[in-house]
Amino acid sequence: MGRRERVYLSVEEIPKYWYNALADLPFQLDPPLNPQTKEIMKPEELSAIFPDPLVEQEVTTERFIKIPEEVLKEYAIFRPSPLIRATNLEEYLETPVKIYYKYEGVSPTGSHKTNTSIPQAYYNKISGIETLVTETGAGQWGSALSYAGLKFGLNIEVYMVKTSFEQKPMRKCLINLFGGKVTPSPSLETNFGKKILDIDKENPGSLGIAISEALEVVFSRNKAKYALGSVLNHVLLHQTIIGLEIKKQFEKINEKPDVIIGCHGGGSNLGGTILPFIPEKLSGKNIKFLACEPKSCPTLTEGEYRYDNGDTAGLTPLMKMYTLGKDFIPPKIHAGGLRYHGSAPIIAKLKHENMLEAVAFTQDETFEVANLFAKLEGIIPAPESSHAITGAIKEALKAKKNKEEKVIVFTLSGHGLLDLTAYS
Amino acid sequence: MGRRERVYLSVEEIPKYWYNALADLPFQLDPPLNPQTKEIMKPEELSAIFPDPLVEQEVTTERFIKIPEEVLKEYAIFRPSPLIRATNLEEYLETPVKIYYKYEGVSPTGSHKTNTSIPQAYYNKISGIETLVTETGAGQWGSALSYAGLKFGLNIEVYMVKTSFEQKPMRKCLINLFGGKVTPSPSLETNFGKKILDIDKENPGSLGIAISEALEVVFSRNKAKYALGSVLNHVLLHQTIIGLEIKKQFEKINEKPDVIIGCHGGGSNLGGTILPFIPEKLSGKNIKFLACEPKSCPTLTEGEYRYDNGDTAGLTPLMKMYTLGKDFIPPKIHAGGLRYHGSAPIIAKLKHENMLEAVAFTQDETFEVANLFAKLEGIIPAPESSHAITGAIKEALKAKKNKEEKVIVFTLSGHGLLDLTAYS
Repeated sequence: MGRRERVYLSVEEIPKYWYNALADLPFQLDPPLNPQTKEIMKPEELSAIFPDPLVEQEVTTERFIKIPEEVLKEYAIFRPSPLIRATNLEEYLETPVKIYYKYEGVSPTGSHKTNTSIPQAYYNKISGIETLVTETGAGQWGSALSYAGLKFGLNIEVYMVKTSFEQKPMRKCLINLFGGKVTPSPSLETNFGKKILDIDKENPGSLGIAISEALEVVFSRNKAKYALGSVLNHVLLHQTIIGLEIKKQFEKINEKPDVIIGCHGGGSNLGGTILPFIPEKLSGKNIKFLACEPKSCPTLTEGEYRYDNGDTAGLTPLMKMYTLGKDFIPPKIHAGGLRYHGSAPIIAKLKHENMLEAVAFTQDETFEVANLFAKLEGIIPAPESSHAITGAIKEALKAKKNKEEKVIVFTLSGHGLLDLTAYS
Repeated sequence: MGRRERVYLSVEEIPKYWYNALADLPFQLDPPLNPQTKEIMKPEELSAIFPDPLVEQEVTTERFIKIPEEVLKEYAIFRPSPLIRATNLEEYLETPVKIYYKYEGVSPTGSHKTNTSIPQAYYNKISGIETLVTETGAGQWGSALSYAGLKFGLNIEVYMVKTSFEQKPMRKCLINLFGGKVTPSPSLETNFGKKILDIDKENPGSLGIAISEALEVVFSRNKAKYALGSVLNHVLLHQTIIGLEIKKQFEKINEKPDVIIGCHGGGSNLGGTILPFIPEKLSGKNIKFLACEPKSCPTLTEGEYRYDNGDTAGLTPLMKMYTLGKDFIPPKIHAGGLRYHGSAPIIAKLKHENMLEAVAFTQDETFEVANLFAKLEGIIPAPESSHAITGAIKEALKAKKNKEEKVIVFTLSGHGLLDLTAYS
């Protein structure tokens, strides 16, 4: 008793600005290229896909971007999220290390994804858009965008990777509850989907395929845009609300993290967690950033650093990133999200510049950790988030061995209540 | 912004004592009777079912019962739970009323049930018990007891009402995740189950039948006891942690509730919510206690106030309560918990003495409210809890009509993430 710390912020303490790391990073990102011409993409070319305010956020180097009042009001429904000290896990590991986690599972759809779905829906709405089309893997993003669409009066259409659609019926219910329409991908509703199914009608789908289907639909409609749940600069920008809150919470308890950990799929919760600590890292403080990914989709640990498409059909701009190739499909046994073939350009460059380390874990290993964590900490983690816990445990044990009194923080990006069948 | 209030308590502020209303109530409960002899049950007769410390808590009239350190340590994993002002709901209703809810869905299994499963497991453990057998309806109690069993090293066996077992596969996963064994009831594992299935092999089960099966198993085993998730005095005692926290939270914001609302199944979350306010009510303050139940299981609103068995086979003591009859089975369409034929004797007596009002709602009505609440407040309520929300909305609209500036509080006893299929 008494040792268990939960660090809360009041609603008034929700950060009023997102932090844009592009203002401070000691390198420039390689620009996105037009997939046909291979020329540098002009911002206006991105406008076919995204509304102007988001295109602007994609390229700006302004350090702080004001969060609109309308977005803050929606954030206030679930933010600030708690920072929790994992005292039971610490005791279990018998480590001198302090382990904290930022718990994003308190959001309406149970993951960090609402941090960006809400501003994305808002900026599309004020740009006159009526329909947002998107892809989703495990369903976290699809449900988050549906929730946000409901808030701002947009139609939401979701192409969901077919394996996940079949494994996770509850996420479909959640998308529907918030008024979204969901279609398993590959589908017969697009030419690209039909082409894929012609070749292999058992194709389990991939994020790359689902993105291609969503984009095809967007290009065929009026007042429709695309929304992406990860990877892009503006998505990571919105997610910095996580790390900015973590900073405030650590200030409250007069503590500073030595190791900052996130799971890595497309890079948004990881980016949101670590980017606000870029200034400290650049000022010479010894902070370790660690990305944790699945061995079955080892983008940062085994991918190549090169230009590649964000989707399978080759409709998106070419981006410089670590990639497993746009045709990559994770093995069918792979249960969670974290199934994207590429990575956020910012994250990829951080890795390439040795400012970020990456490690991969097997599914068995992370499920075992998830079970342990549920029993010790009373929260059932999402399979995705379990990668971050696994990373934190390994770091804690390493510090224990070296007798180092470190402070570790990781983002628990979501709960696993809708993934319980995967646990069985 | 700024208007949304969430009232947090620190871990140090978790109440250190449960409150026993029997010390203050202006009436005595009618004693439980032996089901065979119809004589007043002696405490030692209860010892066949429950360990001595719980039997003692069942009958004591001591006002405050100290919460053991071991239990406080486990409470600290998820308690104190937040008190949240439903500002979006208030805005939607355009009411001058303030509406607060105590959110118990933050517990490891997503409902208030862990408040009593943890102490029950603890007291059984220190009494040398190795196995706890129980029943569960929607699965909230079964998963909560499994979690607690894991914490204190007890085997947990759960007889789950068959309809719910089939409707809610996720709860079974949750029980298994925490190491509990679950059997659909009626089952072939007990003589009573076999008898029921002989008569009707399609029998959908009921809590009364499941309790009978669990008790039969307990009587046939060594070092095994029974655990009940509601109804009994000691269960309501443990649940007073809810109302005690609510009181502290209202003190923090210098506010006092005029209407206190809970959903009613067996009476434990309702009792836990309202009983700590008994002293204020007795001192003459005008506080309304309101029980909200389903029309398909209208115990308090349509049941008879008389002695009845707690289970279908007639193995439990006879208790004086509102009852629909021990053979009552809710219609198969009934989706949630709140399916018990009886009610907690304390709650029943409060109703009988006109200290508590009760109201019943249809399933359609409460699901509509649940949808509305999810959209406005960003939390998907359990179907059970939706009855309390429905009650709160009706009270708020009544106050609006009468231009009264009331303060309403209800307990949101759990989240509905594992009930999403029922929403579709």
